[in-house]
Amino acid sequence: MDHNLQDTIALLSHTPAALNALLRDLPDVWTRRNEGDKTWSAFDIVGHLIHGERTDWIPRTKIILESGEARPFDKFDRWAQARESEGKTLPQLLDEFARVRGESLAELRRLNLQPRDLARRGRHPALGDVTLSQLLATWAAHDLTHLHQISRVMAHQYRDAVGPWTAYLGVMHCEGHSA
Amino acid sequence: MDHNLQDTIALLSHTPAALNALLRDLPDVWTRRNEGDKTWSAFDIVGHLIHGERTDWIPRTKIILESGEARPFDKFDRWAQARESEGKTLPQLLDEFARVRGESLAELRRLNLQPRDLARRGRHPALGDVTLSQLLATWAAHDLTHLHQISRVMAHQYRDAVGPWTAYLGVMHCEGHSA
Repeated sequence: MDHNLQDTIALLSHTPAALNALLRDLPDVWTRRNEGDKTWSAFDIVGHLIHGERTDWIPRTKIILESGEARPFDKFDRWAQARESEGKTLPQLLDEFARVRGESLAELRRLNLQPRDLARRGRHPALGDVTLSQLLATWAAHDLTHLHQISRVMAHQYRDAVGPWTAYLGVMHCEGHSA
Repeated sequence: MDHNLQDTIALLSHTPAALNALLRDLPDVWTRRNEGDKTWSAFDIVGHLIHGERTDWIPRTKIILESGEARPFDKFDRWAQARESEGKTLPQLLDEFARVRGESLAELRRLNLQPRDLARRGRHPALGDVTLSQLLATWAAHDLTHLHQISRVMAHQYRDAVGPWTAYLGVMHCEGHSA
């Protein structure tokens, strides 16, 4: 299926409310525990999504529109949220994510991207040539990969509690498939 | 981690609103497409969750409390939703899931389960001996395995659109791990 900007915007618009409804006021056992050493909790993942709004999606969109392939994207810091989320509560992060996502989408609409813009190329420091269309599709898919991760991290907390039913629960057998 | 009934109830209480916020009013490309032959769309999965409320979790809880291991659980029909969801819209299914989940949780609270109840045993037709505690933990983990699945089915629709970024998106490499 081809990328469709309106479908992308629709999905990006839903994610903050979906995470809010899933996570707000849940016991810490669901939101603050991870899968072990150097893995992320749901709390960490919301922080990562906030960092992406600030440094990844719209900034990279502007690099493509302004400089094309001449200027590679800045690298993305996958551990920045440990610093930026420190001392905050999960409800604060959920509010912050909703706000910065709203700002990103307002900026995206202001750019009023046309098909010729979506076909423009940029340079990813590791992946090489990419298009703006691919960047924006990835923004939406990135929300989904982290919703996928959050559901797995939460399920992990009940790995022992479900007993033999673990055989029927695909999420318990997922290792995340990270590159 | 041990099973905690209050943590289970907290999670079960959040799922309908989370699915509602994620899915309601999204374009059909996200909610009605699946991963290919004999796979499920988000629409199908919400129907499956409704069927579980009607025939699985509370009915099996009552079988354990009333008959213990003497009466095996009825088998669960994994394709019932194709029939039961026919002609309905996704918003109707989301409303229905919220209603039947609310009824299930009201019934669960009425049962006022104590530790000795949670330790009672039942018989699964394929898995053999299980406890009520394991059944209730599985109810929560089952929500999460389907949230994991929904995020994967949705991401699949952008498999081509993300181009080389697929390498960094774990969800694109997940095959579901179903037994």
